Amino acid sequence: MRQDRSKCLLRRQLPDIVDDIYDSYQMIPSIRNIGESRLPCKSVVIDILEGVMDILFPGYYGDSVLCWENSRYYVGTRIDNLFIKLSDEISKSIRHECGQDTHICIECRDKAEKCATDFFKKMPKLRSFLSEDIKAAYEGDPAAKSLDEIIFSYPGTYSIATYRIAHELHLMGIPLIPRIMTEHAHGKTGIDIHPGAKIGRSFFIDHGTGVVIGETTKIGDRVRLYQGVTLGALSVPKDGTGPSMRGRKRHPTIEDDVTIYAGATILGGDTVIGKGSTIGGNVWLVESVPPGTRVVIEKPQLRFKTKVPVD
Amino acid sequence: MRQDRSKCLLRRQLPDIVDDIYDSYQMIPSIRNIGESRLPCKSVVIDILEGVMDILFPGYYGDSVLCWENSRYYVGTRIDNLFIKLSDEISKSIRHECGQDTHICIECRDKAEKCATDFFKKMPKLRSFLSEDIKAAYEGDPAAKSLDEIIFSYPGTYSIATYRIAHELHLMGIPLIPRIMTEHAHGKTGIDIHPGAKIGRSFFIDHGTGVVIGETTKIGDRVRLYQGVTLGALSVPKDGTGPSMRGRKRHPTIEDDVTIYAGATILGGDTVIGKGSTIGGNVWLVESVPPGTRVVIEKPQLRFKTKVPVD
Amino acid sequence: MRQDRSKCLLRRQLPDIVDDIYDSYQMIPSIRNIGESRLPCKSVVIDILEGVMDILFPGYYGDSVLCWENSRYYVGTRIDNLFIKLSDEISKSIRHECGQDTHICIECRDKAEKCATDFFKKMPKLRSFLSEDIKAAYEGDPAAKSLDEIIFSYPGTYSIATYRIAHELHLMGIPLIPRIMTEHAHGKTGIDIHPGAKIGRSFFIDHGTGVVIGETTKIGDRVRLYQGVTLGALSVPKDGTGPSMRGRKRHPTIEDDVTIYAGATILGGDTVIGKGSTIGGNVWLVESVPPGTRVVIEKPQLRFKTKVPVD
Repeated sequence: MRQDRSKCLLRRQLPDIVDDIYDSYQMIPSIRNIGESRLPCKSVVIDILEGVMDILFPGYYGDSVLCWENSRYYVGTRIDNLFIKLSDEISKSIRHECGQDTHICIECRDKAEKCATDFFKKMPKLRSFLSEDIKAAYEGDPAAKSLDEIIFSYPGTYSIATYRIAHELHLMGIPLIPRIMTEHAHGKTGIDIHPGAKIGRSFFIDHGTGVVIGETTKIGDRVRLYQGVTLGALSVPKDGTGPSMRGRKRHPTIEDDVTIYAGATILGGDTVIGKGSTIGGNVWLVESVPPGTRVVIEKPQLRFKTKVPVD
Repeated sequence: MRQDRSKCLLRRQLPDIVDDIYDSYQMIPSIRNIGESRLPCKSVVIDILEGVMDILFPGYYGDSVLCWENSRYYVGTRIDNLFIKLSDEISKSIRHECGQDTHICIECRDKAEKCATDFFKKMPKLRSFLSEDIKAAYEGDPAAKSLDEIIFSYPGTYSIATYRIAHELHLMGIPLIPRIMTEHAHGKTGIDIHPGAKIGRSFFIDHGTGVVIGETTKIGDRVRLYQGVTLGALSVPKDGTGPSMRGRKRHPTIEDDVTIYAGATILGGDTVIGKGSTIGGNVWLVESVPPGTRVVIEKPQLRFKTKVPVD
Repeated sequence: MRQDRSKCLLRRQLPDIVDDIYDSYQMIPSIRNIGESRLPCKSVVIDILEGVMDILFPGYYGDSVLCWENSRYYVGTRIDNLFIKLSDEISKSIRHECGQDTHICIECRDKAEKCATDFFKKMPKLRSFLSEDIKAAYEGDPAAKSLDEIIFSYPGTYSIATYRIAHELHLMGIPLIPRIMTEHAHGKTGIDIHPGAKIGRSFFIDHGTGVVIGETTKIGDRVRLYQGVTLGALSVPKDGTGPSMRGRKRHPTIEDDVTIYAGATILGGDTVIGKGSTIGGNVWLVESVPPGTRVVIEKPQLRFKTKVPVD
């Protein structure tokens, strides 16, 4: 009876409400995808990401018990399955951007399958990078009890692995999918790495919440970042010329063996932090520093006042 | 056999353990909801949020392929379904707060259905606002490749859309549900917008992790924020008078066309940032600035020291 | 037909791709778990966490309607079920770390069941702590409308409750599981509390994104933190002696009744913030302050410049 009443109240008004929304779909086209070619499906892209993680860190992500006898079959089956999903999503993302509205576009399809195949060939290289990243975390964090702990629970692991996966797809010129992956990791970890950034070996981010690494950042080997570090762009003009900065180097270059402590901000496409430098917490830098420099903020002026004692 | 043994170990002690917990439920009432009217269900509230997103951004969130012929039916069915869920959750949240313990409270029920119906009438208005927010993001971020990318993956999109949805429910005086929605978005994006804040058109938040926008904040049109910006309250007294500040304007006013860069903190209910101002990164402000002001931190004092060169 | 073509493209190369990955598993052992004892399953650990939350805050997390007549059965059944899961996960985490490769290790199994049983005995104590934490939130936040709102939606509630649960398991010497729990909460809330930290009663974190509380931090009663507060370690040497700092007190001590505002950073194992002190926003401290001190940053030097008026 309740159901009846409630449906009645809405039902009287439903046709008008739906008509208004339909009109809004026609009048405001920028945030709809109706009658156009299909977009990638966000949840499938995230499934693919998780599946690739399982291949890269076998025995950690899935719930299968892997041994040397079964792991070859396990991987083969997984890749076979992920290949279908990944090439579907790639073809949707390519097709949508190239604006072709046909139901099957052989050319996009072929390119997508080629990309997906090439992608899986990168797995050994990615594992090599990731094993060094994990080792760098173990060496850099006295709170780390084991490699297992770092692989299982460190936000830096998840965000760096996601970045390395997404970066390979980005290099192939695939739109949308790489950013969906890195923004998913951003959501899970608070670490925002653009898939276009270039990052070297043995990279470690501790804690990580609030880290931002912009699109044109270049980072060398054995670099270590802490929470709240921004590698960003200088101001974006508000006069509409912002889009014209697309593609230019707007973010800094961090050379090998640099450590950047929590809350430091380094901005600008011409800013280079020289090899082996250490940037202290909360430092704000918009200019280059030569190799081997240690930069810290001047002991900040604080005021200390004794309050009426708390009892 | 293992199962038997393990169950035995616990089973011997289970009655005592359960009794102790039951006693704790009776003795510590503040964090239980037993024998009272039902509360809203968090997971259903989040389902509703996702469903409304799908209506606002058709073709992006769901997995249906929308065309002009089917979209009217699609929306009609979705709203019919969401209406039942939303009016159920609203009636639970109202009923719980008004303390009535009856099983069916006709008055709350009617109010809930009225609110849910009114809410769906706002969809075209919300789409108009959101299309402008997306456009502001495209103009404000040189890394943005397409509107699709912004809709799919930008945390600012998710948090602002969630805020705009929750704000409509907040204006109707509905408790709990708006905050469950915005805190869900806070969890996913690191952007914490209270549903009570008032925010104008063409609003853009880039990166976003760490942004806090307090309950009584007022923000004009075409405002742009970066990660780590706090629009907050001055200190809350610890003598128990905190609750008495409820309802007062405690957070700043940001006029039209203001840009606030990463890490800036603006505090206080009387603080007004005048139209067209730019607040630089890491600036800390507890007082008003007139229109058209550019505020930056003094070039901070840094100490540079050359370390023994790294080889 | 598409399926056939696509499968063919990959299938020709699949054996080689799989061989290369298999070789990589053999050559890079640090990020694989193949042919070793099983690790805990992350998703089950998170299920356990959610189940324990439901016991601690009855009527808030699950979708059951609890009354005084059914709650005893509800809790009994839930614990019976969680006990199996928790003792399984504990035994996997212990067994993996002790390096025993047997299929069933009676000793680990018994220890796991003992731990799981002891853990559930802590529920009343945890509820007592959590009820005080919730009360502290209500007193500390003028935006809080009700205890329900705080329990449902505050990130501080989720992260502190998760910490208190994980801390109990940490005290029993269980590896991996406590950190998986707290890093899950870190991902959901942006609040990073190491399960090893020691935290007193009536603890409140407002907003919370970016908070870091290190492994050896000690926090007294009635302490209040805001977003972006770091209680961290001083620099970690890069010469490989980092791991040797394991176990030492590296993080600060915060005494009773201290409030630390947004963005403050307090570092070092010898740093003690005396009872009743207030640390202002953005303060950076690497030394102790006596009880009853109020520390604020000197009014920062800002440059104000009037821009050409925006019209």
